[in-house]
Amino acid sequence: MGPERRAPAKSYAAILDAVEDRLRTGQLRIGDRLPSERALAEEFGISRNSVREAIRILDALGLVRSGVGSGPSAGAIVISEPSAALGWGLRMHLASSFLPVVDVVAVRRLLEADAAAAAAARREAVSDPEAEQTLARAAEILAALDDPALPDETFHELDAQFHLTITSLGGNEVTTTILGSLRQATVGYVQEGVRLLTDWPQVRLRLQEQHRQILAAVAGSDPPAAAAAVSAHVEWFYRRAFEHLEG
Amino acid sequence: MGPERRAPAKSYAAILDAVEDRLRTGQLRIGDRLPSERALAEEFGISRNSVREAIRILDALGLVRSGVGSGPSAGAIVISEPSAALGWGLRMHLASSFLPVVDVVAVRRLLEADAAAAAAARREAVSDPEAEQTLARAAEILAALDDPALPDETFHELDAQFHLTITSLGGNEVTTTILGSLRQATVGYVQEGVRLLTDWPQVRLRLQEQHRQILAAVAGSDPPAAAAAVSAHVEWFYRRAFEHLEG
Repeated sequence: MGPERRAPAKSYAAILDAVEDRLRTGQLRIGDRLPSERALAEEFGISRNSVREAIRILDALGLVRSGVGSGPSAGAIVISEPSAALGWGLRMHLASSFLPVVDVVAVRRLLEADAAAAAAARREAVSDPEAEQTLARAAEILAALDDPALPDETFHELDAQFHLTITSLGGNEVTTTILGSLRQATVGYVQEGVRLLTDWPQVRLRLQEQHRQILAAVAGSDPPAAAAAVSAHVEWFYRRAFEHLEG
Repeated sequence: MGPERRAPAKSYAAILDAVEDRLRTGQLRIGDRLPSERALAEEFGISRNSVREAIRILDALGLVRSGVGSGPSAGAIVISEPSAALGWGLRMHLASSFLPVVDVVAVRRLLEADAAAAAAARREAVSDPEAEQTLARAAEILAALDDPALPDETFHELDAQFHLTITSLGGNEVTTTILGSLRQATVGYVQEGVRLLTDWPQVRLRLQEQHRQILAAVAGSDPPAAAAAVSAHVEWFYRRAFEHLEG
């Protein structure tokens, strides 16, 4: 399962294994700094080039942010941005046509409908100021999306923020990570699909109606209605904007 | 969204963008060989070290298999193994405790139950020799799992194969990729959990009963029963083996 199985001959694998092990045992935590390239090269008996390769991979996976400069404080910092990294990986695999967009949409529907239902269920808690704030933020995003002068790119970004805000209210971090990844993986396809729509202004209005239905169901503590509203919204937009992209 | 946004100053980003672009436009396909490090360095005006970093990242994402040697035919080959790469990334993020195991289990339950229902629905098709073969393979795996002398590690591997076989029959490649990733991400936790069970031989027998219920529901074309059997199985095993790992 480890990198050594995928790439037995690669000298940088020892560093990846060690980082995983130290993360698991708590010797290494988010915000910590990795030892310098020089120190890691000495510790693992490998070249600085190999150390740099390991750090690039950790960077690509959203696990470290590489340091700049070469002083003693230049080591990479441990972070955790799984959706950035996984989104990029998924996007590359979508580009290679291994993963069909229709399958992405089906997974998105399932996970996001479940998250919206969980968000609506959470709303039932007698007092949950954090949930109230999150709902208020979602309402603000919808108000901003009403502006017909909003550039398309901003519309897509805020639209994604609305969806991730509702999803995060559901409280499952793996769901939020996967949906964030899928969104990043498909943003190019969404923009491509929208460019081909002749009635985009009308589509935008319809999307906003659907967003308000989702928000109303979540705010009204109605899990089945929240799941159904998300599911209908994702399905409708896919049919309008994506379907011509596939055979 | 692209790597350049995450790491603006990195010279290897141009290669990652170019590979994505060429995959999308079909200039590069699975099985193709990338140009040599030397040729890529010349084309993008960057050092061979930077080229090597880009290729290592593509390797880590399961998008290329690096070539060996340094001759003209040593370029990396384009592959598509998203679950290997994404599983490894998820595993690292689980190790850093950013993603709770309980959330992984909830997502696994949802996606795998849906896939089993789709597998059962597909079974209803009048004639589907591929589905018959897949079901026969699942039955063979269960027969092998009955052997009480099977080492634990082999049991876990075959168990995972059974689940992925049923999932793949559902036909959604993104679901299969995500579940494969989650399985790889949690294999260490499963083994750790099982080591702490005092009644593991009895647990193995119970898991096999549950596996047979899943297979019977899929083979019997009963989508709700298939979904319920998977859901109960995942939940039961989590409660027995995982729960002590979390606060």
